[in-house]
Amino acid sequence: MKDTLSTSQQAHVLISALPYIQKYTGRVVVVKYGGNAMINPELKKAVMSDIVLLSLIGVRVVLVHGGGPEITDTLKALGKESRFVNGLRYTDADTAEVVQMVLAGKINKDLVSLITQSGGRALGFCGIDAGMIKCKKLSGDADLGFVGEITSVDPTPLANAIYNRYIPVVATVGTDENGQVYNINADTAAAEIAAALGAENLIMLTDIRGLMRDINDPDSMIQEVKLSEVAGLTEKGIISGGMIPKVASCVNALKNGVKKAVMIDGRIEHSILIEMFSDEGIGTLFTK
Amino acid sequence: MKDTLSTSQQAHVLISALPYIQKYTGRVVVVKYGGNAMINPELKKAVMSDIVLLSLIGVRVVLVHGGGPEITDTLKALGKESRFVNGLRYTDADTAEVVQMVLAGKINKDLVSLITQSGGRALGFCGIDAGMIKCKKLSGDADLGFVGEITSVDPTPLANAIYNRYIPVVATVGTDENGQVYNINADTAAAEIAAALGAENLIMLTDIRGLMRDINDPDSMIQEVKLSEVAGLTEKGIISGGMIPKVASCVNALKNGVKKAVMIDGRIEHSILIEMFSDEGIGTLFTK
Amino acid sequence: MKDTLSTSQQAHVLISALPYIQKYTGRVVVVKYGGNAMINPELKKAVMSDIVLLSLIGVRVVLVHGGGPEITDTLKALGKESRFVNGLRYTDADTAEVVQMVLAGKINKDLVSLITQSGGRALGFCGIDAGMIKCKKLSGDADLGFVGEITSVDPTPLANAIYNRYIPVVATVGTDENGQVYNINADTAAAEIAAALGAENLIMLTDIRGLMRDINDPDSMIQEVKLSEVAGLTEKGIISGGMIPKVASCVNALKNGVKKAVMIDGRIEHSILIEMFSDEGIGTLFTK
Amino acid sequence: MKDTLSTSQQAHVLISALPYIQKYTGRVVVVKYGGNAMINPELKKAVMSDIVLLSLIGVRVVLVHGGGPEITDTLKALGKESRFVNGLRYTDADTAEVVQMVLAGKINKDLVSLITQSGGRALGFCGIDAGMIKCKKLSGDADLGFVGEITSVDPTPLANAIYNRYIPVVATVGTDENGQVYNINADTAAAEIAAALGAENLIMLTDIRGLMRDINDPDSMIQEVKLSEVAGLTEKGIISGGMIPKVASCVNALKNGVKKAVMIDGRIEHSILIEMFSDEGIGTLFTK
Amino acid sequence: MKDTLSTSQQAHVLISALPYIQKYTGRVVVVKYGGNAMINPELKKAVMSDIVLLSLIGVRVVLVHGGGPEITDTLKALGKESRFVNGLRYTDADTAEVVQMVLAGKINKDLVSLITQSGGRALGFCGIDAGMIKCKKLSGDADLGFVGEITSVDPTPLANAIYNRYIPVVATVGTDENGQVYNINADTAAAEIAAALGAENLIMLTDIRGLMRDINDPDSMIQEVKLSEVAGLTEKGIISGGMIPKVASCVNALKNGVKKAVMIDGRIEHSILIEMFSDEGIGTLFTK
Amino acid sequence: MKDTLSTSQQAHVLISALPYIQKYTGRVVVVKYGGNAMINPELKKAVMSDIVLLSLIGVRVVLVHGGGPEITDTLKALGKESRFVNGLRYTDADTAEVVQMVLAGKINKDLVSLITQSGGRALGFCGIDAGMIKCKKLSGDADLGFVGEITSVDPTPLANAIYNRYIPVVATVGTDENGQVYNINADTAAAEIAAALGAENLIMLTDIRGLMRDINDPDSMIQEVKLSEVAGLTEKGIISGGMIPKVASCVNALKNGVKKAVMIDGRIEHSILIEMFSDEGIGTLFTK
Repeated sequence: MKDTLSTSQQAHVLISALPYIQKYTGRVVVVKYGGNAMINPELKKAVMSDIVLLSLIGVRVVLVHGGGPEITDTLKALGKESRFVNGLRYTDADTAEVVQMVLAGKINKDLVSLITQSGGRALGFCGIDAGMIKCKKLSGDADLGFVGEITSVDPTPLANAIYNRYIPVVATVGTDENGQVYNINADTAAAEIAAALGAENLIMLTDIRGLMRDINDPDSMIQEVKLSEVAGLTEKGIISGGMIPKVASCVNALKNGVKKAVMIDGRIEHSILIEMFSDEGIGTLFTK
Repeated sequence: MKDTLSTSQQAHVLISALPYIQKYTGRVVVVKYGGNAMINPELKKAVMSDIVLLSLIGVRVVLVHGGGPEITDTLKALGKESRFVNGLRYTDADTAEVVQMVLAGKINKDLVSLITQSGGRALGFCGIDAGMIKCKKLSGDADLGFVGEITSVDPTPLANAIYNRYIPVVATVGTDENGQVYNINADTAAAEIAAALGAENLIMLTDIRGLMRDINDPDSMIQEVKLSEVAGLTEKGIISGGMIPKVASCVNALKNGVKKAVMIDGRIEHSILIEMFSDEGIGTLFTK
Repeated sequence: MKDTLSTSQQAHVLISALPYIQKYTGRVVVVKYGGNAMINPELKKAVMSDIVLLSLIGVRVVLVHGGGPEITDTLKALGKESRFVNGLRYTDADTAEVVQMVLAGKINKDLVSLITQSGGRALGFCGIDAGMIKCKKLSGDADLGFVGEITSVDPTPLANAIYNRYIPVVATVGTDENGQVYNINADTAAAEIAAALGAENLIMLTDIRGLMRDINDPDSMIQEVKLSEVAGLTEKGIISGGMIPKVASCVNALKNGVKKAVMIDGRIEHSILIEMFSDEGIGTLFTK
Repeated sequence: MKDTLSTSQQAHVLISALPYIQKYTGRVVVVKYGGNAMINPELKKAVMSDIVLLSLIGVRVVLVHGGGPEITDTLKALGKESRFVNGLRYTDADTAEVVQMVLAGKINKDLVSLITQSGGRALGFCGIDAGMIKCKKLSGDADLGFVGEITSVDPTPLANAIYNRYIPVVATVGTDENGQVYNINADTAAAEIAAALGAENLIMLTDIRGLMRDINDPDSMIQEVKLSEVAGLTEKGIISGGMIPKVASCVNALKNGVKKAVMIDGRIEHSILIEMFSDEGIGTLFTK
Repeated sequence: MKDTLSTSQQAHVLISALPYIQKYTGRVVVVKYGGNAMINPELKKAVMSDIVLLSLIGVRVVLVHGGGPEITDTLKALGKESRFVNGLRYTDADTAEVVQMVLAGKINKDLVSLITQSGGRALGFCGIDAGMIKCKKLSGDADLGFVGEITSVDPTPLANAIYNRYIPVVATVGTDENGQVYNINADTAAAEIAAALGAENLIMLTDIRGLMRDINDPDSMIQEVKLSEVAGLTEKGIISGGMIPKVASCVNALKNGVKKAVMIDGRIEHSILIEMFSDEGIGTLFTK
Repeated sequence: MKDTLSTSQQAHVLISALPYIQKYTGRVVVVKYGGNAMINPELKKAVMSDIVLLSLIGVRVVLVHGGGPEITDTLKALGKESRFVNGLRYTDADTAEVVQMVLAGKINKDLVSLITQSGGRALGFCGIDAGMIKCKKLSGDADLGFVGEITSVDPTPLANAIYNRYIPVVATVGTDENGQVYNINADTAAAEIAAALGAENLIMLTDIRGLMRDINDPDSMIQEVKLSEVAGLTEKGIISGGMIPKVASCVNALKNGVKKAVMIDGRIEHSILIEMFSDEGIGTLFTK
């Protein structure tokens, strides 16, 4: 056990975790993994440990991840400039291929390897496997190329995996009816997967503390938001910018049967455990 | 989580428990419960918490208990003096009935209730159920009346219970072919049950720190004893008195397939967790 | 086979039992056991044989029992006078403990042992096991102390037992949310258990022939009562005194899905078999 | 229950059957059905009742039957004379077809129907189904045409049937590698089927009381024969004539794992029940 | 592979079968077998091959057959003239027995044997088995004796068979409540069995190309008929004569949940495969 | 069906495939995919169709693939020259990362997508998933960097996949105890996977017709090689150059329980089907 504490103190900590373990054992929890927690190696390792611990106490965890700097780096190394439209990467056919390769072949398998090194049993998936994530071209004002909008998720391979006590790790690319690959926003995909699996919890790791009433006031975090309050908060500009799609994903998950969706600060070590194993939680909780 | 620690510290403790959880999940662990840990209400509650926690992280725990002061108290209240032969209670027919009643009806169901109150799912058993523990009159120099020597254990009802994720709690009375009830030594019974279930671990809660080279020197505890060393230690008088039957039970369990048998100090709060969740353990470990 | 009959006659008897065996095989039958059949050793043995036979031909029998003279005897032996309020035992905290001990530790396990001796496979339970019977203080005019009113029954442990072909024997004590033990009327408990298990039949062993139109006329027994007739029979005083709660239990069982509830005379040897294996039955049958 | 006995007497009979039910429940028992018990309608009905009763108390019964007068009758009606060689029917190609038709289509399905009428669940099979009984031309002194010698039995369809609680009824025709149909001796087939299913018991219904030391002395029946005694009894002529192949079948079954093989008098009503449900049995028992 | 084609051509054929295999794998298909395809040995063998192939690619085929010339032949050989009423065989008690014998014992087992010879695993059934097909006397203008009208079908034995990957072959005789055997029209029986099994497809082999607008114009076959068109086609006389009951069976199947019912020309070799493995099919398809 | 053939001819082809389907259904077949068949789009599609067809008729196919030109292309595009030692690619740490990314993220998922487009259900795996392929640095004369030698294969995830009727596609990278990724020869990996799964068949797609006695004589292909002949053929130089490791893989598979290993010409369309669905096969068969 941890060195600076007496074994007795440590035993007390374990005992105090009891009610939370009881609450979550057997439940499906989808973790959207991204941002700083995916870049900083210390945080990365802590997240993997959290995932393995949850898995061992019987939580059925699914890890959903997007890409991040590695895609840009690889595109650059391949001499291909990333083009952005309204702050979003434009994905041409070549880029879609690179996205698939980096997401499903590099980041995904690296995460699988890290979990295995931490004593977990992970299996890497992407939306191409068994045609699991079907999508079409994202509709909207700007043409983003092969950026996809999910039309259906077949959760069977993930359900098989968690039933056999594996931890599925999912890279968010999908295909349309013709097999064309699309890049998919990982927040959206995590929400859809959580809904398809009938998950208890959707946990989104972000780079902020939570939803802030006043972005400059660290004490202004909102602990809980009801679905009915989202419209008002958006009107007031409290939900704005990059938070809009994230909140939309949470709302989508809740509307499709997920019990709780929570945004937590991925920059805090073991934030997943702290969220799940304390009454107050950390971050902002979205509920019906 | 525990108040005096930060949530972050607590998360670290949980993470540090990971390798031990990995080690024990799915394993069968038989805990012989007795002595002070069964009398002191604080300790009692701590043991129940330990049991529930183990159960939740997937350990298949079986709790085996004997009687203790409550039998004497009830016999006394019924106007029946306890008679002792060589320090062992003489069990006449009436006493055997009282032993059954107090063990299987009072102590056993009280423990079941305590575990249930702590969030576990316990089922009370005694050796009479489904004729699970068969015995005959204990052979030996002194006639102890209806004190039994186990002839066979049918572990099926216990196996069914742990397979359905219940925690079986077993009172150590048994019957002979004619249905006569016998009082059985709980250490012996725990060892036989552990062997019949193919348990990984037998943990015996005692009122001493472990096996001491010098009873007056608290630093002289022996951490590990190999089967081959038992005879020598007995000759030297280090294993003596009340330790002799306890050690014999450990030896019996190991010889019949149990991997590890350990005597730990039940007077230390959460001693079971501390033993199982640290590398050094506490108490004296018996191994092949 | 039975000596006084030729083997051929005996074979004919077995063959004539065929249609009844066909009718009951695989069905759940809850037997409320009490009164004289629980005191007279001959009758006791006959009931146990009936239970074992039913179990062997595939009937899933659950035996529910209360206490009786042994509780009073033990209380007396412990120097504790039984106090009665309106003919019902007042149960203070100490008495509740004794009730639990005698019911779950003495009577219950003695029945389990008897069934085992007769070749059956019984498992003893009480409402404390796995928090199976939850109750609250019985409401009513008189304060009876820790006499409980059932709030819920979790039939899972009993269902597991009958599915694994064990005969569960249930002592009727339960607990409230705080773990306080209550004494529960066995008729009521049997009805609730029958309902929770979706039993086909509830058989109540009593010390009378059945419901009598005229208590002094042995030929006035009513063979069948429809639910709709109960109110009228009560008004006329035909259902009165100790019969009122027994009939109420039957009514309760029927309203909650049990097909048939029948009161039979436990003073007749093998009355359970005679009831189940003949067209006319014995005793009074309650049906929708 | 049976009219001439009181219900109480009947209950006693049922109770006295308990130990025998306990002994056979779950076991596989193969009954070779033939002779008078197959011709006399009263006896036929009694056998079917016995079979259904056994099935209901959990015995896994397989009924194996041959032909008898109906084959001769049908051959005659078709204008085909039966030809016999050394007392055995010569089976030409046309006859083999008629045998198949009468055995598998008439006698077999009539038995299935009778069992169904008695409340059992029977399924008719013959050795042609799923190529279950493979055979070759019987070797021997006389050429008997398409009379087969079993080369292999695939018990899977019968095992599926008894596992699903059906009573398989088997007509003893088989095929060779080319699909040619053969008539097979039913005693031999019953023994082979019993061996293939790992049956507990093979019961052969015959038209004699058992193996008689002196055919004229009704008190000279031999109750038990050990395998080692068969040679001697044959030498002495006690096993002779039509008994030789029947005894050979019993011997064959025992050598291939069947526990007990018994020849009983099919002319006694309910002889199967009397044999199985009494200590002494009737008829001659063959054991290792 | 087939000699006259190159292995490459053959591989292409197999590949082109892919979408049809995908369509039918796991589905239940009931084939009504009769007419010329049952008489001509070449066609017979081709049908058996089709059935085995379908079974191997995962289609759950049930073969339902009637009688035909063999019944008449056997009746004749037995010196019993067939009597016809309105073109339908009058079935007296003796005839019913012969029908059972020939259908269930001869034709049925011969088909089972043929399938086994082709490498399939078939089990023969008739409606008598497990009381699977219950019927009553066919009502109607003419008295046809023991010709039955189906009152219920218990598909359990057939479902068990296809689940265990056997091919059930069903002879269409049934019984009433008293065990009296009835001859049942095989078209009707196939439709009822298809409905009871929730089949995807009912395929009826006939001796015509399909439903013809003009019986003299081979190009006038109707490829598809909707349920709503049946009445009109009957009025116009296009559905007439022997087609009326066949179409009625198809209609009945569709109304009870079967997806497609199709009449195909059994005189064409491998017509079942051609129907199932091509887009256009052959014959007349009935759909909702 | 295929256009140039009549439907009747096509049906005959299907029927002629029957014995081969019977032979392989339920068997595990590992296909090593590489060479020209992986580059030429027509051939690629034909291989995918073969795989899907096999899967549909019940063969449990596992597709194992290596890399090829795409790795070199990507390395080049990333400005990294491939270095070769003795004709084998030297794999430095960066290269290992690229290999993982291209194999597991590009080629693997593209194959999965192609199979899905052809109507199959594929799941992509690499040796990193669940730590499935463990390896160490390849020992040998030349230092090839992170080129791995397999130390163990855990077939569980692949077995789960084929049991659930998915087609696993496996990219041959693995990890050592520290999580370092290694490039693994795909022939070797396919052989090890076939052994770990207890496969019936290992099929290796190559760019030659088979093992040739005389490389210049197209008629000199050896149809079958026994294990005992390998040494001699190697001595004579008939097994030489690039054939040596391929043959070694076949030998390894056979020694570890695989029944047949065959090298076939991947340049022939549908070579897998032709091999499996004809008696003579194509290519060179290795057997014990």
